[in-house]
Amino acid sequence: MKSLVMTKIGDPKEKTIGELELREFPMPEPGPEDVLIKVAYASICGSDIHFLKGEIGNLYDRIKSELPRQIGHEISGTIEKAGAKAMAIGLKPGDKITAFYNEFCHSCYYCRDTSDDKKIFCPSRKSHHDAMSQYVCWHMSQIYKLPEEADLRDACLTEPMSVALQAVEKAEIEIGSHVAVFGGGGIGLMIAQLAKMAGAATVTVIEPVAGKREIALTIGADYTIDPISEDLVARAKEITGGMGFDIILESSGAASAAKAAPDIAVVGGKIIYFAMYNPAFDMSVNLFQTFYQKGLIMRGVLFSDRCVERAVRMLPRMDFTNIIQRVHPLEDFDKAFADMGSGQYIKVILKCND
Amino acid sequence: MKSLVMTKIGDPKEKTIGELELREFPMPEPGPEDVLIKVAYASICGSDIHFLKGEIGNLYDRIKSELPRQIGHEISGTIEKAGAKAMAIGLKPGDKITAFYNEFCHSCYYCRDTSDDKKIFCPSRKSHHDAMSQYVCWHMSQIYKLPEEADLRDACLTEPMSVALQAVEKAEIEIGSHVAVFGGGGIGLMIAQLAKMAGAATVTVIEPVAGKREIALTIGADYTIDPISEDLVARAKEITGGMGFDIILESSGAASAAKAAPDIAVVGGKIIYFAMYNPAFDMSVNLFQTFYQKGLIMRGVLFSDRCVERAVRMLPRMDFTNIIQRVHPLEDFDKAFADMGSGQYIKVILKCND
Amino acid sequence: MKSLVMTKIGDPKEKTIGELELREFPMPEPGPEDVLIKVAYASICGSDIHFLKGEIGNLYDRIKSELPRQIGHEISGTIEKAGAKAMAIGLKPGDKITAFYNEFCHSCYYCRDTSDDKKIFCPSRKSHHDAMSQYVCWHMSQIYKLPEEADLRDACLTEPMSVALQAVEKAEIEIGSHVAVFGGGGIGLMIAQLAKMAGAATVTVIEPVAGKREIALTIGADYTIDPISEDLVARAKEITGGMGFDIILESSGAASAAKAAPDIAVVGGKIIYFAMYNPAFDMSVNLFQTFYQKGLIMRGVLFSDRCVERAVRMLPRMDFTNIIQRVHPLEDFDKAFADMGSGQYIKVILKCND
Amino acid sequence: MKSLVMTKIGDPKEKTIGELELREFPMPEPGPEDVLIKVAYASICGSDIHFLKGEIGNLYDRIKSELPRQIGHEISGTIEKAGAKAMAIGLKPGDKITAFYNEFCHSCYYCRDTSDDKKIFCPSRKSHHDAMSQYVCWHMSQIYKLPEEADLRDACLTEPMSVALQAVEKAEIEIGSHVAVFGGGGIGLMIAQLAKMAGAATVTVIEPVAGKREIALTIGADYTIDPISEDLVARAKEITGGMGFDIILESSGAASAAKAAPDIAVVGGKIIYFAMYNPAFDMSVNLFQTFYQKGLIMRGVLFSDRCVERAVRMLPRMDFTNIIQRVHPLEDFDKAFADMGSGQYIKVILKCND
Repeated sequence: MKSLVMTKIGDPKEKTIGELELREFPMPEPGPEDVLIKVAYASICGSDIHFLKGEIGNLYDRIKSELPRQIGHEISGTIEKAGAKAMAIGLKPGDKITAFYNEFCHSCYYCRDTSDDKKIFCPSRKSHHDAMSQYVCWHMSQIYKLPEEADLRDACLTEPMSVALQAVEKAEIEIGSHVAVFGGGGIGLMIAQLAKMAGAATVTVIEPVAGKREIALTIGADYTIDPISEDLVARAKEITGGMGFDIILESSGAASAAKAAPDIAVVGGKIIYFAMYNPAFDMSVNLFQTFYQKGLIMRGVLFSDRCVERAVRMLPRMDFTNIIQRVHPLEDFDKAFADMGSGQYIKVILKCND
Repeated sequence: MKSLVMTKIGDPKEKTIGELELREFPMPEPGPEDVLIKVAYASICGSDIHFLKGEIGNLYDRIKSELPRQIGHEISGTIEKAGAKAMAIGLKPGDKITAFYNEFCHSCYYCRDTSDDKKIFCPSRKSHHDAMSQYVCWHMSQIYKLPEEADLRDACLTEPMSVALQAVEKAEIEIGSHVAVFGGGGIGLMIAQLAKMAGAATVTVIEPVAGKREIALTIGADYTIDPISEDLVARAKEITGGMGFDIILESSGAASAAKAAPDIAVVGGKIIYFAMYNPAFDMSVNLFQTFYQKGLIMRGVLFSDRCVERAVRMLPRMDFTNIIQRVHPLEDFDKAFADMGSGQYIKVILKCND
Repeated sequence: MKSLVMTKIGDPKEKTIGELELREFPMPEPGPEDVLIKVAYASICGSDIHFLKGEIGNLYDRIKSELPRQIGHEISGTIEKAGAKAMAIGLKPGDKITAFYNEFCHSCYYCRDTSDDKKIFCPSRKSHHDAMSQYVCWHMSQIYKLPEEADLRDACLTEPMSVALQAVEKAEIEIGSHVAVFGGGGIGLMIAQLAKMAGAATVTVIEPVAGKREIALTIGADYTIDPISEDLVARAKEITGGMGFDIILESSGAASAAKAAPDIAVVGGKIIYFAMYNPAFDMSVNLFQTFYQKGLIMRGVLFSDRCVERAVRMLPRMDFTNIIQRVHPLEDFDKAFADMGSGQYIKVILKCND
Repeated sequence: MKSLVMTKIGDPKEKTIGELELREFPMPEPGPEDVLIKVAYASICGSDIHFLKGEIGNLYDRIKSELPRQIGHEISGTIEKAGAKAMAIGLKPGDKITAFYNEFCHSCYYCRDTSDDKKIFCPSRKSHHDAMSQYVCWHMSQIYKLPEEADLRDACLTEPMSVALQAVEKAEIEIGSHVAVFGGGGIGLMIAQLAKMAGAATVTVIEPVAGKREIALTIGADYTIDPISEDLVARAKEITGGMGFDIILESSGAASAAKAAPDIAVVGGKIIYFAMYNPAFDMSVNLFQTFYQKGLIMRGVLFSDRCVERAVRMLPRMDFTNIIQRVHPLEDFDKAFADMGSGQYIKVILKCND
C-alpha cells in the first residue's frame, strides 16, 4: 500500500521547501487493541506546510533526524480490520470512522489528572503522522465511530474542528457576547462557525484576503474587517457599541494581529492566542495597562482529545462547502501541497482511496 | 392615561377566572432617577393567566388584598421624559427601550453578594406590575436602551427572553450536547432557540400540541416528540444514540413532564425545572437511582436581571415570527386574555399606543 | 499468599450478614502493563458492609452469582514487581503507592468524552475488589506513586478521600460559604475537612452520635448539630445569620437527613446527595417550593479517578488521627468487620503485611 | 471633625514625596440613603504611597488638579447616624461596619451586565477617598454590617482582603494545586492565607525580605523562596515534584517577578498579574513558547465589590497578628506614612477615634 513520505525538510532561513514522495509500504497488521483503517480522506494541515518549510522552531533538529518520515494527521475512513479487543468494545470492519492522531499512556500525571487538557504532555505519547496513506494502523483509543450517513469528505476535518471547538470552549463565550476572530483560514472559519453556535451575539472575522472575508460571511460571520485598508479599532467600536469585543480568538499567527488584539478588547475581555507563532516573535505587553487597568485575560489553548466526540456530534451542523476548496487524489499530492502552500485555498484535502 | 387593572381574582378550586378593567390614571411624573415610558407593547405572560385564575399558591392572600391592582411586566416603548439623574447617565426622550420589572435596593446581601442570581430575594425589591398601560414610570436602573433600528414589537419579549436565556445559561450546555425542552409555549420555544445558539448539537422539543411542534421545527428544533402518542424513552434513545439527553429544560409545568425528565437523561445529565408548578404537586424522587447510581443534577433557576442586556444583544438573532401570534390594541384586552387563556397561542401581545 | 473472600451474602430482609474467609491464592504474576503490589493497608469501606449485608438493591443477584468473591478496594502498599511497560513509565519495585480500584478502557464514550466524571459507566470497566490481600496485581493506569516520606497507614484512605474530594469539588464552594455536612462517618469527616480547606467560612457537621460530633470539632468543623435533640432549622439559621447553608453535603444516607436538607439551605443553595441510599426510599420533592420559589440545586456525584492525584497531594494536610480508629492484622478480619459493622468507629483498617 | 488631606503630590522623576495635612471639616450630614460613620481605623494602602509619590501613570494630571484632596479608603467603624432609607434596610446607629469605597450607579452596562467584575468601569462611579477622617458620610450600598463580636482593628483590612479574595477566586484554584505568591506585603500575605484556605495543597511565598518570609511561614505558607539568593526555577521544581506551580499570583509589582512567573508555571498553568505595575514597564512575551507550546493563562483581576460580604465572613479565619504591624493615632499620620513608606512594615493603620 502507498503512503506519503517527507524525504527532505526545508530551510526557513533560505526559504526552501522540503520534498515529498509516495512510497510503497507493507500492509500494516493490527494488534489486539489496534484498528486497520482504509483511509478515505486526509486533509492538509497548516502545520504540515510549516513542517515542510522547516518553520518549527526548536523541533527542527529532531524532525530532520527522523527523515524519511510519513506525514498527515487529519483523517477519515472505514475500518478494514479490527483487533480482538477493538472488536470487543464495538469497533468492526465497515464502520465509518474518524480518529485522533495522538495515542496516550493513560497512566501518567498529564493523562490522568485534573484536566484532560494536559494529555498532550504525556511523556509516552505516540503521535501518528501517517494519515496520507491508503491504510493506517491506529490504536482503538484513537478511533471515533461516525453515523452511517456521515460524509467522509467532511469528516476528515474532525481533528482540526475539534481543535477549533477546544478553543471556543476555552473562550467560555457568554450568550450575547461580541466575538472577533483573527484569520479566515480553515481553523479561523471553523472557530467563527462554532463561536456563532456557542452563544455569540455577533461574530466578526478579521482577514486581509477579500475572498476569505466573503466566505466568512457565508458561514455565519456577521461582520468582516480588512485590517489593511480599514481602521480596525474604529470598526471594532462601531460593531460593539463602543466597548470592544468580549472574546478575541487569534488564529492567524500574524504578529500584527497578535499585537492588535488587546486594542479591540473590552475591559475584562479575553484573548485566545491560538496559532503556531513565529518562534522568533516576542510581543511587548504593558502590564499596567493590560492587566492592572484593563483586566484582560490572555491565554493559549492546548490541543486535546476531549472534544473529538463532541466535534463528531457537531459535524452535521458545520458548513464546509466553501472551506474544502480542493480535493486531489493521493497520487497528486504535489498539486495538493502546492495549492495549500499558495495560501489561496482554505482547505485542500487528499482522496486516499477510490 | 389608561391602564389595565385586575379587579377580581379567580378561585382555583372553583375554576373561576378573575376580572380586568381599563381605568383612567393621572399621568405619572418621573422623579430625578425615574423615566416616563410611553409603552409600545406589553406582552401577556403565562403567569398573568395564573394570577387571574388565582393559581399562585401561598401568594393568593397577599395578591387578593392588593386588589384592584395593575398588571403586566413584559414591556417595550420609548422614553417620554427622563429625570435629571437618568438624563445624566444617558437616557433621553425618544430613546427606544425595554425594561426589567423589578427595582432592587443594591444594598442588601441578596443584591450585592456572591451571585447576582439572588437579587430576586431583595427584601426591599419593588416589582412594577403595570406594563399594560399607556404610560409607566420606572426607575433608571430598570431601563435598557435598544438600538435605533430595533423592532419594538419583538422587544416587548425581552424580559421573558432574558428568563429563557438565564435558564439556558444555567444549563451550562457544552458544545455538542443533546438538549431536550419540555413545552412548546413562549418560554419553551425561546429556550429551544437559545439552546441551539448556545452549543447544542441537537434540540428536541417535547410538546403534545401538534401546531406547537410544527412551529418548534421552524425555529431551530431538530426533532419534536409528542409525549402522548409516542414512546418518549424510545424516541429519546433513538435521537441520542442510546444514551439520553445531556440537558433537559422542563418549561411545561406539567407533572407528567417533570416525572418523565429523569428517564430520558443521560447518566450525569442535568434537568432544569423551570416552570411555575402546581403548588400541590409533590414529585417522588428515588435518591439511590437518581443521585447515587445515575448522578443526575436537578435544579431550579431564579429570575434575574443579569441577562437582560445580553438578551437585548441576542434579540436580532431571535425568530419571533411564529411566536407572537396575536396582537390586540390595549382596549381589546379581553380578547387578548381570552386568546392567551385558550392555550392555543404561543404569545399574545397588547399594543398600548398607536 | 492470603486474600479475604466473601463466601456468602446476607439477606437484607432477614437482616442476616454474609460470611468472610481468608484463603490461600497463588501469587499473581504481572503482565507487561501490570504492577504487583505488596499491600500495606486495606481500609474497610461502608459499602463493604452494605455488600456483606446484601443491601445493594439491583446489584444483589449479580454479586451473589459471583461468590466466592474477593473484597476490598481502599489500598496502600509498595511495588513488589512491575511489568516492562509499567517500568518504562517510571514505576519500580520499592515505590510506595496507592491505587484506584477501577481499570478503564480509555476508548469508549464514557472514558473519553466531555467530562471525566462518567468513566464509571465505561462498559468495559474492570473493578478490582481484592485489596484485602497480601498481594494484588493491578494495571499501571490505576497506580499513584506516593512521596518517600508518605505514611502508608494514612495513604490507604486515598480512594475514599478522592471520593470526598470529588464531592467537595462538585459542590463548587465559593470562598466564604457556610457549609453543612450530614454524617460524621469517614466520608463525612473527610468532606468536612476538605470543605474547610476549599473555602468554607464555616463548616457544620450534623450527626446524632456524640462521639463523632466531638471528633468533628477536632478536624476543623466550626459547629456540630445533633439532629435528634436539637432544632435543626433553628440552629441552621443561628449559624448562618438567618439565611441557611450555601452548600449541604448529605453523606449519611439517612432518609431523615435527606429530607431535612432543603429546609436548611439558603435560597439558590446546593445540596449534594452523596450517600448510598436505601434503594426502597423515595423522597417527596415539591417542585414549586424547591425549584420555582427557592431555586435549589440537588445533585449526585459520580465516583471518578480524576481526583486521585490531587487527593495524594492533599494527604499531608489531612488529619486522620481520630478517623482511623482501629487497625487489625489481616488475619483478624472478623474483629475488623465486627468493629466497622458496629457503627461505633469511623474507619477500621486492615494491616495486610508486616 | 478632622480629616487627612493630601496637599501636594510627589514628582516620580525627581523622587520627591507629596505632603499631607490634618484639617478641620464640618461634620457631614447624611442624606436619606447615606450613613454617617464614626471611623475606628483606616489602613494605609500601598496605592496611597504610590499616590503620594505621584507614581500613578496617566492619572497624575487629574489627581494633581484635584488637590487638596482627602485620602484613605480602607475603613472600619460604627454607624453614628443613618438616613431614613438606610434605616429602613436595617442599618442603625451603633452598628459595627466596614465599607467599600466605590459607589456605583447600578444602571449602566458595567454595573448591571454579565459580570459584576466590571462595575469598576461604571462611568458614574463615585470613589470615596476620605477614610482617614474622624467621620465620613457614605452611601448605604457601600456599607457592610459586622457581627457584634467583630474586631474593628482587623476589620479595617476588609477592603484589601476583598481584593485578595477576588484574586484568589479568579485564580480558580483546584483542590490540591501548588500555588506560588510573589510578594510578602499585605496583599501577598492575605492572598497566601486565602489560597491555602481555598484548596491549595501547598503555598509558596516568594519574597526578598527575610522578615516577611518569616511571617509568611506563620500565616500558612508551606515554603518561602528568596528570589535574590536562591535559584527560583530549581526551588520551584523541587517544591512541585518537577512540574511547576499550577497557579501563580504576582502581587509584588516588581518587573523581575513578573518576568520570572512563566518560568515557574506548570504547562497550562495560570498567572495572575495583580499589582499596580510601573506604567513604563513593558514585558516581552514569546507567544510561541508561552501560549502555543506551554498553553499558559495570564490575566489581570479587576477590583470589585462582589467579594466584600464574603470577605466579612472570612475575617474570623484570617490571622492579622503579624500583618498589622503598626497602629498610630490619626494625628500621627506622618509617622504612619513614614513607617509604611519605609517598606519595612506589612500593614500600618491609623486609629481615627478613641
